[in-house]
Amino acid sequence: MNAETTQAAAARPRIVIIGAGFGGLMAAKTLKGASADVTLIDRHNYHLFQPLLYQVATAGLSPAQIAAPVRSILRGQSNVTVRLGRVTGVDMAARRVELEKESLPYDWLIVATGARHAYFGHDDWEQFAPGLKKIEDATAIRREILMAFERAENAADNERHRLLTFVVIGGGPTGVEMAGAIAELAKTALAKDFRHIDPRQTRVILVEAGPRILTSFPESLSASAVRALARLGVETKINAAVTECDAAGVVAGGERIDTDCVIWAAGVAASPAARWFRADADRAGRVKVDSDLTLPGHPEIFVIGDTAVVAGKDGKPVPGVAPAAKQQGVYAAKAIRARLEGRPAPKPFRYVNVGNLATIGRSSAIADFGWLRVSGLLAWLLWGVVHIFFLIGFRNRLSILIEWIWAYLTFQRGARLITGPLP
Amino acid sequence: MNAETTQAAAARPRIVIIGAGFGGLMAAKTLKGASADVTLIDRHNYHLFQPLLYQVATAGLSPAQIAAPVRSILRGQSNVTVRLGRVTGVDMAARRVELEKESLPYDWLIVATGARHAYFGHDDWEQFAPGLKKIEDATAIRREILMAFERAENAADNERHRLLTFVVIGGGPTGVEMAGAIAELAKTALAKDFRHIDPRQTRVILVEAGPRILTSFPESLSASAVRALARLGVETKINAAVTECDAAGVVAGGERIDTDCVIWAAGVAASPAARWFRADADRAGRVKVDSDLTLPGHPEIFVIGDTAVVAGKDGKPVPGVAPAAKQQGVYAAKAIRARLEGRPAPKPFRYVNVGNLATIGRSSAIADFGWLRVSGLLAWLLWGVVHIFFLIGFRNRLSILIEWIWAYLTFQRGARLITGPLP
Repeated sequence: MNAETTQAAAARPRIVIIGAGFGGLMAAKTLKGASADVTLIDRHNYHLFQPLLYQVATAGLSPAQIAAPVRSILRGQSNVTVRLGRVTGVDMAARRVELEKESLPYDWLIVATGARHAYFGHDDWEQFAPGLKKIEDATAIRREILMAFERAENAADNERHRLLTFVVIGGGPTGVEMAGAIAELAKTALAKDFRHIDPRQTRVILVEAGPRILTSFPESLSASAVRALARLGVETKINAAVTECDAAGVVAGGERIDTDCVIWAAGVAASPAARWFRADADRAGRVKVDSDLTLPGHPEIFVIGDTAVVAGKDGKPVPGVAPAAKQQGVYAAKAIRARLEGRPAPKPFRYVNVGNLATIGRSSAIADFGWLRVSGLLAWLLWGVVHIFFLIGFRNRLSILIEWIWAYLTFQRGARLITGPLP
Repeated sequence: MNAETTQAAAARPRIVIIGAGFGGLMAAKTLKGASADVTLIDRHNYHLFQPLLYQVATAGLSPAQIAAPVRSILRGQSNVTVRLGRVTGVDMAARRVELEKESLPYDWLIVATGARHAYFGHDDWEQFAPGLKKIEDATAIRREILMAFERAENAADNERHRLLTFVVIGGGPTGVEMAGAIAELAKTALAKDFRHIDPRQTRVILVEAGPRILTSFPESLSASAVRALARLGVETKINAAVTECDAAGVVAGGERIDTDCVIWAAGVAASPAARWFRADADRAGRVKVDSDLTLPGHPEIFVIGDTAVVAGKDGKPVPGVAPAAKQQGVYAAKAIRARLEGRPAPKPFRYVNVGNLATIGRSSAIADFGWLRVSGLLAWLLWGVVHIFFLIGFRNRLSILIEWIWAYLTFQRGARLITGPLP
């Protein structure tokens, strides 16, 4: 490389993207062909298709079926460097992203670090009620669920009831999907596999602090979901805030439920980006950004996805869902490209709600497209098609399609492994 | 249940099988329909198809594709109870198998607890050179291999050579397969995914203490394997005993090799069954059994598979391979059934060698059926057909077949995930 090309390379603007989730990955893809050096940093070497993570936790899918290596996805995009690493902070004055052992300079920064579960000031509950955000969470929850049946098989009679009680906290889509999937697992795949217990006696309780589940859906669809859950044997408890959580169970709505297995699907806390920027954040820790998704006073820093909070056209915050993160990733990338190419900045970000889907179990889901509201088999097929379509990589699509068809026909689960250290 | 049936049930002979590997599972299946209560104990809830474990370690397959839940496999066999648990000992006088918290009585016992790797008195090497026996080993090795490339990508130039050097110790089938698969991973799937390193520069060294690799094959096939490994870029070092192993590398055949990633595929040590019985064992800890596979002086205790050593018809010990374990499982079960049903005991166990296969990489394997010795594409296709055929469960067969076809066509790997705690 001679001096001239070195200088030319140095003169290319440097764009750093933190996080290879839906928002960060879409931003990187949208920067394809841009005259800039893009670095995409993530703690993991894969992009995770989080909407199907509950199926890993309930033994339906393998981790590799919902995760694709970031390097492979972006292999053909020569202006992108993928970097495995953990970001510890951002030096806004020096414009450098700090990693554990070094720092990377940026001219533009896109922060898409996602969220984790919030325990509302009760962080000590996490040990008893793990949340579901990472692959390691999913395989740990899978172990807990499957171990509960194994323990019950060998337990004294008076212990079995507690061991076969599962509590899912939080009536959002993840909570509903987890509760439905656990009930189905017990009532179909495991039904005939034990000699001393009948897994069909399993009790699954979905606990929601508010007055109804799936509040992002119209009331009629929430009600369908409750009925569909009931058909699977899931009890839905509304207006039941959790006030205690310990090794023996939970207290929800004033009632103690004895259980060994609690799963936390309530409350979202943004990653620590707000702390990096000493920025204004909402109660969930999400950075308050301007309508162009930049940090106030920092037009070079975009914060997107679950890390940020921005008002939609109805004044309500844009929801923390995958389509919103992807739209924001595209928007941030386009805004940077416009500035780099001397074009006017785009209009303020506007979230387009493409529809809302949640699945409950076999042949059962709800879908709300505004102009169309359906529940049951049609919604379930739509849910399946949409999730297969948005998966990254042909291999994953084919493999999940086959897995689902096999599970549908045989009532079995494809990944019933208890892995990790034996307790 | 009235008193009469209780008594009848109590009078049924109790057969306990320890271990749900190839030997234990075949024993349980062969006892189908026997008038006995069979309990199959394993530390894991799945039967693992160990011959393909190296493909999990090299990012080709997911754990669930080579593991099937033991309960599902034996669901239809009403005389079998599956028990998840860790055996701590056997009380031969009381005829009880001791678990961590309780004990189970037996009238007949089949011990099929398998083997782990032996470090020949250097147990401290295990931390630097992990072996490959369990699913957790495979995902940990996968992490180490993939992390080596990630580290090299961000390392200083003088560090890269060491980080891109992989050493596999042991020139048996597992070592050959691992070495070939690492070379292939580097040279195909990863080839274009990095910006600062060229994974095709990866150095893979297969180290064997003896004068040739794959000693269970004829010399001509060993030589073919060495040539096939060389074509993949694997260096084979023979007569190179390992004398040191530490965080910086290994010393093999007197030469120090600097590396971060060493995989141990040498030496087998039987599980501690010999200690339970205070029985005669060979140097590898395998219990010396009579020609009917029973423990000397204990016609009610069968020891099979990698846990035992027994002479074959040529006087050499029966090899520690899956077909031998399966044949022994069938033999032990049939011997017990004969005794239960008042028939004469079967003739001494005789191992039938059905052939010997090892794969090196894409389109490359060796096969020895005695009457037929082949290498190359034909051997590789045979290897694939045999491995698909012997997998348990239609779903696993279909899923691996598709995964292999996809990998063959795209040169990609289906499970390139770095999971577990980030270092």
